[in-house]
Amino acid sequence: MAQDMEGAVWQALDQFKIELPSWGFANTGTRFGKFMQPAAATNLAEKFSDAGMVNQLTGACPTIALHVLWDLPNGLKDVSKVQELSSKCGVAAGSINPNFFQSQEYKFGALGNPDPAIRKQALDHLLDCVAIAHKCEPYFYDTDVADWGMALLLAKAAGPQALVLVDTGHHCQTQNIEQIVAWLLRAGMLGGFHFNDRRYADDDLTLGSIDPYQVFRIFHEIRNYEWETGAPVDVAYMIDQSHNMKGKMEAMVQTVCTAQEIYAKAALVDQARLSVLQQECKLVEAEECFRSAFWQDVRPIVKSWRRSKGLVEDPLLALRESGYIEQITKERAAANQGAVASYA
Amino acid sequence: MAQDMEGAVWQALDQFKIELPSWGFANTGTRFGKFMQPAAATNLAEKFSDAGMVNQLTGACPTIALHVLWDLPNGLKDVSKVQELSSKCGVAAGSINPNFFQSQEYKFGALGNPDPAIRKQALDHLLDCVAIAHKCEPYFYDTDVADWGMALLLAKAAGPQALVLVDTGHHCQTQNIEQIVAWLLRAGMLGGFHFNDRRYADDDLTLGSIDPYQVFRIFHEIRNYEWETGAPVDVAYMIDQSHNMKGKMEAMVQTVCTAQEIYAKAALVDQARLSVLQQECKLVEAEECFRSAFWQDVRPIVKSWRRSKGLVEDPLLALRESGYIEQITKERAAANQGAVASYA
Amino acid sequence: MAQDMEGAVWQALDQFKIELPSWGFANTGTRFGKFMQPAAATNLAEKFSDAGMVNQLTGACPTIALHVLWDLPNGLKDVSKVQELSSKCGVAAGSINPNFFQSQEYKFGALGNPDPAIRKQALDHLLDCVAIAHKCEPYFYDTDVADWGMALLLAKAAGPQALVLVDTGHHCQTQNIEQIVAWLLRAGMLGGFHFNDRRYADDDLTLGSIDPYQVFRIFHEIRNYEWETGAPVDVAYMIDQSHNMKGKMEAMVQTVCTAQEIYAKAALVDQARLSVLQQECKLVEAEECFRSAFWQDVRPIVKSWRRSKGLVEDPLLALRESGYIEQITKERAAANQGAVASYA
Amino acid sequence: MAQDMEGAVWQALDQFKIELPSWGFANTGTRFGKFMQPAAATNLAEKFSDAGMVNQLTGACPTIALHVLWDLPNGLKDVSKVQELSSKCGVAAGSINPNFFQSQEYKFGALGNPDPAIRKQALDHLLDCVAIAHKCEPYFYDTDVADWGMALLLAKAAGPQALVLVDTGHHCQTQNIEQIVAWLLRAGMLGGFHFNDRRYADDDLTLGSIDPYQVFRIFHEIRNYEWETGAPVDVAYMIDQSHNMKGKMEAMVQTVCTAQEIYAKAALVDQARLSVLQQECKLVEAEECFRSAFWQDVRPIVKSWRRSKGLVEDPLLALRESGYIEQITKERAAANQGAVASYA
Repeated sequence: MAQDMEGAVWQALDQFKIELPSWGFANTGTRFGKFMQPAAATNLAEKFSDAGMVNQLTGACPTIALHVLWDLPNGLKDVSKVQELSSKCGVAAGSINPNFFQSQEYKFGALGNPDPAIRKQALDHLLDCVAIAHKCEPYFYDTDVADWGMALLLAKAAGPQALVLVDTGHHCQTQNIEQIVAWLLRAGMLGGFHFNDRRYADDDLTLGSIDPYQVFRIFHEIRNYEWETGAPVDVAYMIDQSHNMKGKMEAMVQTVCTAQEIYAKAALVDQARLSVLQQECKLVEAEECFRSAFWQDVRPIVKSWRRSKGLVEDPLLALRESGYIEQITKERAAANQGAVASYA
Repeated sequence: MAQDMEGAVWQALDQFKIELPSWGFANTGTRFGKFMQPAAATNLAEKFSDAGMVNQLTGACPTIALHVLWDLPNGLKDVSKVQELSSKCGVAAGSINPNFFQSQEYKFGALGNPDPAIRKQALDHLLDCVAIAHKCEPYFYDTDVADWGMALLLAKAAGPQALVLVDTGHHCQTQNIEQIVAWLLRAGMLGGFHFNDRRYADDDLTLGSIDPYQVFRIFHEIRNYEWETGAPVDVAYMIDQSHNMKGKMEAMVQTVCTAQEIYAKAALVDQARLSVLQQECKLVEAEECFRSAFWQDVRPIVKSWRRSKGLVEDPLLALRESGYIEQITKERAAANQGAVASYA
Repeated sequence: MAQDMEGAVWQALDQFKIELPSWGFANTGTRFGKFMQPAAATNLAEKFSDAGMVNQLTGACPTIALHVLWDLPNGLKDVSKVQELSSKCGVAAGSINPNFFQSQEYKFGALGNPDPAIRKQALDHLLDCVAIAHKCEPYFYDTDVADWGMALLLAKAAGPQALVLVDTGHHCQTQNIEQIVAWLLRAGMLGGFHFNDRRYADDDLTLGSIDPYQVFRIFHEIRNYEWETGAPVDVAYMIDQSHNMKGKMEAMVQTVCTAQEIYAKAALVDQARLSVLQQECKLVEAEECFRSAFWQDVRPIVKSWRRSKGLVEDPLLALRESGYIEQITKERAAANQGAVASYA
Repeated sequence: MAQDMEGAVWQALDQFKIELPSWGFANTGTRFGKFMQPAAATNLAEKFSDAGMVNQLTGACPTIALHVLWDLPNGLKDVSKVQELSSKCGVAAGSINPNFFQSQEYKFGALGNPDPAIRKQALDHLLDCVAIAHKCEPYFYDTDVADWGMALLLAKAAGPQALVLVDTGHHCQTQNIEQIVAWLLRAGMLGGFHFNDRRYADDDLTLGSIDPYQVFRIFHEIRNYEWETGAPVDVAYMIDQSHNMKGKMEAMVQTVCTAQEIYAKAALVDQARLSVLQQECKLVEAEECFRSAFWQDVRPIVKSWRRSKGLVEDPLLALRESGYIEQITKERAAANQGAVASYA
């Protein structure tokens, strides 16, 4: 039994990868200003370095998502630099994100702006991003829409390669995200996730910091669908967080470890037994079957998996002891000091 | 100008019809019990009588929605009674609603119950309702789903006659209902509305009692779509409310009058000017153009329309002075007294 | 370490008691009707019997809350019956709840009704409940107010014996209940809890079924306050749930076990270390310290505590194997069949 | 009757004043950056100039709220400049706002920071603000707390001069703000308002742009309390908005006009009749009595009041025709161009 559990978790972790966001290593804002972190990454090389360190510690993050505007300001010309950094740091470029919200021209919309000249500017930027993506082997392009129903209609209109991305912080309070995931799976329209947590609005807090049981239910829906269909689902897991209070590196490592642990829990659900209990409408037994996996302390098994892969046992501790944070703090403090702090 | 306004409102009111719910005249429950009203309708004839009175007072309610389980317990055999009451009271049967939530068998689902026998029972009931509907010229059959995206997928799968019904009380707080309406219109998938208002959850309060400006925005989206396409939209407006505190008859007349007044306001929006201001991104001017219609006091014009149609000027006052409520209170008090009050 | 953990959990469980609601064993309603359960309790003796069984299985429920209107319809005259059942079933009467929401007279309010005669009726009922409580050694009388701020002002006005009761299902979505608990503790105004969980509104679902981490944070605030002040807090934990889908007995036992397990997790938080980390603003380390207690699988320790108390190891399994449910199903089925099912 | 209405509105408008926020004229941020406006105020003199123009157009804004950090960076030394600008522009300094959220030191809290040195810095800043306020005749100092209950406890602890400020955008969705206002009034603890509207979170949209009926209900609670007690309530109305899409000047004038119009509507509620209908539990009649004031088109009466005061009839139109916006656009465009646009 314990042997079985270990096997199930190891197998799950072998296949579980989660993409890091380049912007999660840089200073980011609130409405009122930025709290600058001396260790924040200030350029693309530093972002790749940080992502490489997180991947080295966790073994689960082979790719880094890029924002074209911030990371490849010269467009296609910057691709060679990206490829060089990829080789050096051991993380490949992942999704290529266009940016339709920052330029002053986009105040009244980008692709939907009433002014044809601005629509053209937005479309050109989008096509640039596609060209970059062709060189970088990306997974996704995204744009924001109000809910999954609208995203579904847009994706259907855009063609067979367009899918829906679920940002866990972009839903109305009380909306049942795991149910939406289940529908998107069965409609063949789930592309992936932008993971984060929130308490009030789109807070971009670290994954599972407010409601870890919800993350478990989301992972379960995916694994349950795989169990039902007998085939793996190709879903892109990506982190989209903004760490203002927590240290950038610590928060990112913490997030990846949390994602691994909760995914491991989801791997322990006895799908066959759960299905029978659901079919028999044995609600209490089905719920206990389901959440007994959540209550399982998987941390020892995750550690054993890390050992088996030659990884450090405790990534957060290893990060702390590595001297990496002290080093980047020293190197980057000056560059971060000159940055802007107030927005009012 | 004032002449134009009167013309626009009169034309709008001529075409505005709203369906009454048979269950809105009967006693309905809360989680903890029913507050019985002595004047509540206790059978189908009384429901038709009440609906006929509301239609006579307002001139806007030619149909009444029926719940098969409550109103036609003998199925097809009851159709002749319905037709007879229609003639007598001057209101036709409207939408025919199946009931999948009351029978004990449906505890764990109806059409989706794990037990095939119960699924069959539900399907048989649904087919009975269809057969009844064929005799009654109905508009709609409905079932509840979690959000408009799921409803859209189900309706698409069900075939070209299936459309989405928007219940204004069935949305997450903060969800933008008027935006959903705009999307459904452009997707050709808006079937109609179940109108009510709410403060916290699915409260089924009278339309516009909490947020009248939202009702205005919803009506505006429909009229704006008609203006853009140049063709009228076939949308079924229905009331779905549950009056526990307010008198049944007063609340229903109040609802219809409110719907007429807010629809009249929406008819006053200067669509052409609004469109130009939006195109020019003149936000403040566009908003003022839009809401100047909302601020307009349309009550005198609605009264003039009523006079022109030979209707009473003030339906609520006319109801109060008609003696109808005193009469039904006397006739029905005994039947209502014997009813059940406690649910615990 | 493991020894310490066991000690901490055992000590915590020794003092953790949670009150059962008499109404949680009886059929309860939804807006649309009741789904009757054949095993539901139909009178006070059956409620006491069920509560006694739950207490026997879990060892944590020495009291049962009573609703005067439903459980002591003859007022003081019924007290002797209560006392007799207490002795027989091994559970004492707990809080005595007046009922201000069921009688038809209370449609427009009870203690705040505009009609002085109805206010007097409500006050008389309240005083009857106080008289009953004097005989039953109760903890609480409650009334519903819109939020904790209003409850606080009312309780302050009512005198030093009045405190605030927190119903975990009665808050706006996003409201931070654990923060409210922390404030009430420091204001000396926390009386106790009505525990339940919810997804949308006041759903009265079983504790921790939607957000178990929130329950953990609430328990933690109490234990943290005890740790800071060095003195135990006298807080009344009560269950207030309405099981429509789950079996009444199973749901109640499940709830008590969940409460024990999450309370045990809260007992494992290293308060001293957490306090130091918070003081040093080490956010990630503080969070990991805090939630490592949540991730701990306490089920084996809770089992060992049960064994040490001569209790069954697995109350849900023991309930299933006891034959109790089959027995009450047989005994009560007829009485439950006659009950009313529809509210429309 | 119409005469009476005019009298009631004129009297209400004579006493209705609303304070302008200095920061409402300057560029403000979103999480992702600022959309710079060429006409935005870039220094204190320009903010006073803009406020003076709004007051001249509307006659309702004799004071301007200041943020010490942004507007008086040299503390007491800047007071003489404030006084000079007050005289010149015809608007006095209003509330003096400390700033506890911008400095990097406040990342982990200001007055509640674990570090005593930072707590001292925050306290010193607060005392500086008090000293400035003594020279400027201010109304308020504010700090943010999670809800009105916590604000009430803090204000009670702070002494008799401390009151609660209600920010209409700082509540959980579904929270009943008008009920909170009614409680604060009766507890003698309502200090004033920060007015704005919102759709999702703390959006700081223009007053009444999303839910104008709520603003009406809030004003009504205040006027109803005045009617009940026979004495005027001293409540400070302040605007706290952040205009990113709308022009700063247009949005501010629009807000003041909207506030005046909705306040005028509230002045038309027939309090005596409403009170009788409420006492008699005539719900539909009471609601119609209440909202007939809301449906009244008060714009002509507000215009007549403006004429009677020698003010322009249509402040928005007058602003547009004044050439003021073109002038400040020309003067300030260069200064606004150099500003920072990106936060990532």
